[in-house]
This record gives sequence, structure tokens and C-alpha cells, in this order.
Amino acid sequence: MTTQRHALSTTRAENFAAWYQAIVGEADLAEESGVRGCMIIRPWGYGIWQRMQELLDRRFRETGHENCYFPLFIPLSYIAKEAEHVEGFAKEMAVVTHHRLKMINGVLQPDSDAKLEEPLVVRPTSETVIGAAFQRWIRSYRDLPLLLNQWANVVRWEMRPRLFLRTSEFLWQEGHTAHATAEEAIEETQRMLEVYRSFAEGPLAMPVVAGEKPPHERFPGAENTFAIEAMMQDGKALQAGTAHYLGTNFSRAQNIRFQTERGDLALAHTTSWGVSTRLVGGVVMTHGDDDGLKLPPVIAPRQIVIVPIVRDRPEDGSVLEYCDTLARELGAGAAFGEPVRALADRRAGRSVDKRWGWLKRGVPIVCEIGARDVASGSVTFIRRDRARKGEKIEFATLPRADFVRGAPALLAEIQSALHAEARARLEANIRTDLVSFADLEAYYGGSSGTTDTSGADESASAETFRGWALVPWSRPEGAALDQVERQLKSLKLTIRVAPLEQKPLEGHRCIFSATPAREWVLVGRAY
Amino acid sequence: MTTQRHALSTTRAENFAAWYQAIVGEADLAEESGVRGCMIIRPWGYGIWQRMQELLDRRFRETGHENCYFPLFIPLSYIAKEAEHVEGFAKEMAVVTHHRLKMINGVLQPDSDAKLEEPLVVRPTSETVIGAAFQRWIRSYRDLPLLLNQWANVVRWEMRPRLFLRTSEFLWQEGHTAHATAEEAIEETQRMLEVYRSFAEGPLAMPVVAGEKPPHERFPGAENTFAIEAMMQDGKALQAGTAHYLGTNFSRAQNIRFQTERGDLALAHTTSWGVSTRLVGGVVMTHGDDDGLKLPPVIAPRQIVIVPIVRDRPEDGSVLEYCDTLARELGAGAAFGEPVRALADRRAGRSVDKRWGWLKRGVPIVCEIGARDVASGSVTFIRRDRARKGEKIEFATLPRADFVRGAPALLAEIQSALHAEARARLEANIRTDLVSFADLEAYYGGSSGTTDTSGADESASAETFRGWALVPWSRPEGAALDQVERQLKSLKLTIRVAPLEQKPLEGHRCIFSATPAREWVLVGRAY
Repeated sequence: MTTQRHALSTTRAENFAAWYQAIVGEADLAEESGVRGCMIIRPWGYGIWQRMQELLDRRFRETGHENCYFPLFIPLSYIAKEAEHVEGFAKEMAVVTHHRLKMINGVLQPDSDAKLEEPLVVRPTSETVIGAAFQRWIRSYRDLPLLLNQWANVVRWEMRPRLFLRTSEFLWQEGHTAHATAEEAIEETQRMLEVYRSFAEGPLAMPVVAGEKPPHERFPGAENTFAIEAMMQDGKALQAGTAHYLGTNFSRAQNIRFQTERGDLALAHTTSWGVSTRLVGGVVMTHGDDDGLKLPPVIAPRQIVIVPIVRDRPEDGSVLEYCDTLARELGAGAAFGEPVRALADRRAGRSVDKRWGWLKRGVPIVCEIGARDVASGSVTFIRRDRARKGEKIEFATLPRADFVRGAPALLAEIQSALHAEARARLEANIRTDLVSFADLEAYYGGSSGTTDTSGADESASAETFRGWALVPWSRPEGAALDQVERQLKSLKLTIRVAPLEQKPLEGHRCIFSATPAREWVLVGRAY
Repeated sequence: MTTQRHALSTTRAENFAAWYQAIVGEADLAEESGVRGCMIIRPWGYGIWQRMQELLDRRFRETGHENCYFPLFIPLSYIAKEAEHVEGFAKEMAVVTHHRLKMINGVLQPDSDAKLEEPLVVRPTSETVIGAAFQRWIRSYRDLPLLLNQWANVVRWEMRPRLFLRTSEFLWQEGHTAHATAEEAIEETQRMLEVYRSFAEGPLAMPVVAGEKPPHERFPGAENTFAIEAMMQDGKALQAGTAHYLGTNFSRAQNIRFQTERGDLALAHTTSWGVSTRLVGGVVMTHGDDDGLKLPPVIAPRQIVIVPIVRDRPEDGSVLEYCDTLARELGAGAAFGEPVRALADRRAGRSVDKRWGWLKRGVPIVCEIGARDVASGSVTFIRRDRARKGEKIEFATLPRADFVRGAPALLAEIQSALHAEARARLEANIRTDLVSFADLEAYYGGSSGTTDTSGADESASAETFRGWALVPWSRPEGAALDQVERQLKSLKLTIRVAPLEQKPLEGHRCIFSATPAREWVLVGRAY
């Protein structure tokens, strides 16, 4: 088994999209449900999401936010209030029109006597329904800031769903806050963007660029949209979290006013921010290899799995006992401030299948314990991030006490190594030397520079790797911006963000208009 | 302030239903959302639910269950498969018929070009969609048992919603398991019932009777339905958790078959079990008093809140500092195996308002710290479970070190005291001396023995307190059972459960048919 070339049915190089699908399936992360665009998140995938939830929830609490829960259904009239918001979302919502089914001639169907007077929309996001509550709750400056978050499912109808990346239903958190001043609201937006950035770089070991979206990529109804963008192993960008400063747009539409300290009435400034189960897809495409997933230890549901090698022989009992003891000893230790999550996999089945199962699922350290290990009091293990040397599986062996003592440090080392590898890839693949649109065309126009932007070729094989480009532009507006959008679209590119950390413009000119540049923006292909 | 008679606008004695509404509102638990039957769970209410989730989730993991997530939407055809299940749920489901909105003549409405070929039902429960996955996942006896749970929102249309108790959308967990044999599945059902029972009696301090539902009260499609029933302070029963043995009913409808060890094909035996945000309502009606909620410390989002008494004087700074230090010292201690959750409430506002706010919310220990406490190094506090002596607020004072050292034990004592009080009430209010239907009529027929069972009088004032009755019956079936149901209905009673712990029948006769009794059942009015 150690000589097989890779554990997955497809490699990244052969077909990145097929490789992604293979890993999601073979690592037991998720699967199609039979309901168009809705996925089943399997226990291992849900375990990763639950870890993300725990860690984010702690960070939200530490920054003063409280959790609450708002209704799944939003009356149509709420949605209709904020015009731009309608425009942005109206195309993709699930609409509830009846509240009862009836059996008619043996066929179960919506009961026409139970048609709702006002249709209800399944929330695509909750600004409108939460805004209506803010309107009731906020009376005076003393009620501000109001800092809420909810963990919820949302629905945006998807014609071309992909597991985790783009599903009709997904799980997410949405923060919603109201503030007395624009400054405070913007500060909040940036604080939460920083929470996302540090969460991505830390627990997810997923390097990102944080920045602001150009006007045409803003959330419908927002004044400013900030995002973190991660680079996947195919060079494409994944928008991994967003934070919006909504100005007074929603407050005005929803009449969220408060009495100021001076006694007059003012509109509240609101924000919203969210990350979703999409992050699981991001982790897969950041850290996976042709043997499956590699999970950063901080978010791995199991950090160390121990596979006993048993052969229906008398010594099996002592092997199993040794594995249990090892799991217990590991669990008594702490990594990243929490007990080590170790498991002795006592299920029936061949140990080699179990090993490959756990390696595919990305468990950071997989131990294989046989009678020889028991006899010598040692532990044989595989580091998932360095599972192979050439084509062979690389095993290491340590005395048991040393392994147990060193496990937390080893997990920390794996966490850092995964981050360093991804960080190096990101940094090596941002071109900064493309200073004209012709340069951009030459770089991106090659293998797939068609005008087909339907994404229909997404699952086609082997696109040449192209990273991102950091290019100077002049922040055009109106028709000029439309023109830029069209030009980029012809190369299947979008502006991802204007990075918060800007490098000096040094007299550069906009690559679209050749007028003096006003900032650097990151362009790339994206999910 | 200490001489006011009670903090809430209505008392339990005056109008229990109005009192419930007052406490839910004034303790910041939840409110109506403007969407019929859907509630907004406010931060304090959600904090209680999140504590319940954490504690239950741990218990589910300890009993070998894994979390996962299944789609919100269920195709109509799935629901139609299990006939009894359809019958039971078809009347109350939200139906999605369109996947897009369109602005037509300035009015936002479902786009008729985007009508779904097959309507989707918003899950009222997930047996059907999870069963379809079980059918794909289960191949052999080696795949069994399959032990899953999900935390999710579900929708059952409610015509007469009440916050937490009966809402169109609610949050819950639903466990779904598959087993090779009936014995194992029944064992699982009973194991989870016991998890619920001990969770209610432990963290919730809410005594319950565990037992089996009579046939006509079973979950649609179940072979056996078990439940825990709690007694509210108005004497009514609240079904607080259920566990169903589904036999092979769903497996047959959904073709969930597996290869047995002997090599033949067999239907899997399935179970499902759940508790919901209804538990929050149960805690309110078990422990609330006329001053508001009393929270069992194990589930209180904040166990100790410290209110500084400041008066715009120079010594305010030292009072605030003293409060912060006290909160920190308390937080360094552990109660129930976790850090004590203490908060110094530094918000602006009058301290007396803050005190009453926290007492209403049910914080187990509320400290009030003024300059005198700082000077003497002491802590003045109120135990929420004994907030008053006569009509006066009862304060206690302890040296700070003693208070901090004793806080975990005091929290444990409050937890026990709340349980003991509720346990005594339950035990004192189950009549066992009603041995004929005439007895039942005499006891329950008095103040409200009408045949109006619409529940329209639920919010009417002062019903006489009636507890439950444990009565012998003969387990009738068919028409005889219908007759019993009608008789009980005339007294607005239902059979809650046949308690698992049965007392000897000793020749008792069925109170309905006068034939020899086969078991004791608990009857009562219920939510």
C-alpha cells in the first residue's frame, strides 16, 4: 500500500475541480442531498465546522457581541424596503406561499385554502428582519452600540451548486450591529474584518489578503464592503469572509433612529459581517493534497488517531489496551490551550483501510500500533503534512513517553508548517509586474482567455495555474467602471479587493485608463 | 424599592398565562417577530439555550453520537412515502413553491417563471430526508449502529403560537439512529430518554416523570413514543422531550436494508429523539416567581452579577475597581467543573434598575457593591432563590474572601434548592386516590370543566390549580380508546405517559371501563 501514487481517484494536476469533489466525498465531509443545491454535511465535515464555530464564537464574545436568533422567514414587504438590497437578492430566494399540504386524489400538494396572504421569503441574509427589531429596541444613545450575532442557515437559490463553495442552503454566522456614529460603525467593521483575518491565518492556517471591495462588488445596500481573500491551490481566489459598513441606508429604510446625547434624533449607523461553511471548502483547497485533506490541528475534530494493527492473534488484546492507554495519555495533555483530541480507532476493519481513511480525512497525526510497538514501548506514526518521502509513506517511531510528551509541540509545528506552506504559495503568486492591460491579457489570456464567463468550464480539466495580480487603477466610476468590469470579464477576472496594506503608488498609472493611479487592487479568477 | 410587592406586572396567582408572557418579555428572553408564529430569541434567552446545547451536546457525544447537518428543504415526494407520517404532519407545513422574486408593476412577488417542479417542504422534522441518506449509507451490519444528531431549526405552522412553548419555527436537536435489531433500537430509545431525564433533573433542576405515551399520542409513524413530562407551576404538564422507537416503519418506506452477519438482507430498526427551545419555557414555568425568572446556576449565562453602586462621587472609581477585582476572583474559581461566570455590570444607569433587571432575568446571585463594602472589604448580595423575606429583599453580607471561596458551594446549594422545591411540588400534586372516572370529574370538572378544548381560554385569568392524577387503566384500543380520549377531552385532560416506574396494580380496575387494569397512567392538563 505504501507504494501507491496517491490515495484519491484524481489529482489536483489532472483536474482540480474533480479532485475537490473527490476529497469532499472521500474525506466524509459532505454530499449532495437529492434536494437541488442543498448539501448533507457529514459528521467529519460538521465536526470541522463545529470547531470553527466554537473558536469564532469565543472571539465574537471577546469583542463584546451577544448571540441571538431571528426568524427564518422574512415577509416580502420587509425585503421590498431597501431598494438596492432587493435588486441584489431578489433573483435567488426561496419563497413560501402555503402553510399546509393536502391530499387531493391521492396526490400530496399545497392546500389552496392555506395560501399565505403575504408570501414569506426564506432569509438570504437577515438585515431586514433584524433592522425591524433594531427599530423597536433602539431609543436612545444609551442603547448603542448594539452588538449582535446569530448562527443560522440561509438560502440563496443556486443554479450551479458546488459543495461548501456555493450551495442553496448554507450555514453561517451573521453579525449585525448599530452605532451612534459612522466612525464607530466603520471601526466595528474593521475590527470584525481583523477577527476574520486573524482567524483565517491562525486556526485555519489559511493566509488571506484583507481589503476593500470595489463599488460594483459591494453587498447590496452597503457603503463599504471589506473582505478577506484566500488563494486556493489552483490560483483562484476564495472570498472567505465579508464585513459591511451599511451607513444609514438600512436605518433610513427601516427608521432606526435614536435620541442623541444632545436630545435630537439621528439615524443609527449599521454594520453586518459573516463567514459561512464555505470556509470548509477553503480549508480543503488550501491544504489538501493528492492523498486527501490535511487539517490544521487547531480545527481538526481529532488531532491524533491511533490505529491498532490486529491480526486475530493472542497479542491483539495487549495491542488494543496499549492503544487505549496511549489515547488516554495523549488526552490528558493540552495543545493550543485545550485537551488533545485523541482517538483509538477500535472499529472492525483492516488497519490499512483505517490508516488511509484517517489520512484522507486529514488527521494531523496517525499512529499505527502493532505488537512490535507494544513490545518495545514505542509509537509508530505518520505526520499528515509530510506523509510521503518520494512515493513512500514516511513513518517515524518514538519511545511512547517521548511521543506523548512531544505531541502538543508536534501539533503546533504541523499547524505552523501548514500555514508557512500556504503563505509561501500566496506570496509567490501575486504578480506585481503587470503594469498595463496588455500585460494582464498576455498573462491571463493564454489557456482560457475566452469570453465564456458562465463558469460552465469550471469542471474541465487542467487549467494552467495563474495566481493573482496586484495592479494600479484609478478608481473609475459609472460607465468607466462598467468598461473595466467588461475588460476584466473578458479574461474571466474580477477585482478581489484593494488591499488594506497598500504599497506606494510611485507614479504608476491605471492599467485600464492610463490616468494616474489612485490605489493598488488585486485581480484574479475566483470561486 | 425593597418594599414593592413584586417586580413583574402580573403575578402567577392573578393570571398565569399573562405572568408567563410578562416574564418572557421582562427577562429579555424572547419576543414576537412580526412574522406570524416566529419568535426572536433575545440574547439572554439565547444564552440559556446555548448553555443547554453545550451540555446536551456533550452528553450526546459521550453516548457515541456524531453531529451532522441535513437540508432544510424536503421534497414533497419524500414526505409522501410514510403514510402515517404524512397524516400526522401534513396539516402544518410551510411550503416553498418558487425560487425567485420579481418586481411586477412595482410590486415584488413570486416569479411565475420560477415555479418549482416539485414543491419543497420546510422540514417539520427530518426522518424522511435522513432516512433517504441512511438508505444510501447503510450496506452491511458493520455500518450499524449509525448514531447521528443534528442541531437545527424546524417549522410547524401554528395557529395559536406562544413564545417558546408553541412557535411555528423553533430550534431543536433531533437524534436519528439505525440499528440491526429491535432490541438495540429500543435500548437506544431508552438510553436517550434517560439522557433527557437526567438532564432535566440535573442542569435544569426540573423534575420530570419519564414514561411511554399511549398509542394515540405517539409520534406519527412510531411504534413507541417515550417522553419526559414536567409539571409547571399552574399544574399543567409540559412534554419536555421525546424519544421514538420507529420500528421498521421508516426503513420499509425508505428501503433501509442491510446485509446481516449471516448474509441475508434485513430492514434496519430506527429511532429518533429530540428536545427543543420549548425547554426554555419549561424552565420559566418551573422556577419563575412574581419577581421574574430564577435560573438554575448550571444553565445561567451569568451566575453572579455584580452591580456597583456609584453616585458621581470621588469614591466611585474604587467601587468600580473593587467590582472588577471581585468578578475576576470569582471567575478564577470553578463551579460544576467550569469557571464561574461572573460579570461586573459597568453599564450606565441606576444601580437599583440594574439590580431589578438581573433579578428578573434570574441571575442566581446578585451582588451590590457600595463604598461601605469597599471600606469593609465585604460583599453584599442577594440569593435569587431567596430574594425576599416577607416583602423585603433579603441581603446578606460576607467578607470578600469568604464570599469568593464559598461562591461555588453557594451556587451548588442554589441548584439543589431549586430542584428540591420543584420536586416537592411535583410529588405533592399527583393524586393517586382517584379510582373512578367520577372521581376524575369531581376533581377536574369544577372550575373549568367545559367541553371547550380549543384552548381559547388559556389566557383567561386564575384557573384553580390542579395537578396530575395517576390512574389505572386497561390499555384499551380502537373504539374503546377513542371513547376514553373523548371522556378525557371533556375535562380538558390527556394521558401524559404510563410512567416507567409503575406502582403495583393490586387488583385496581380501569377507571374508564372498570375492567381489570393493566397499568397506571398519568393524566393532566397540558401545554
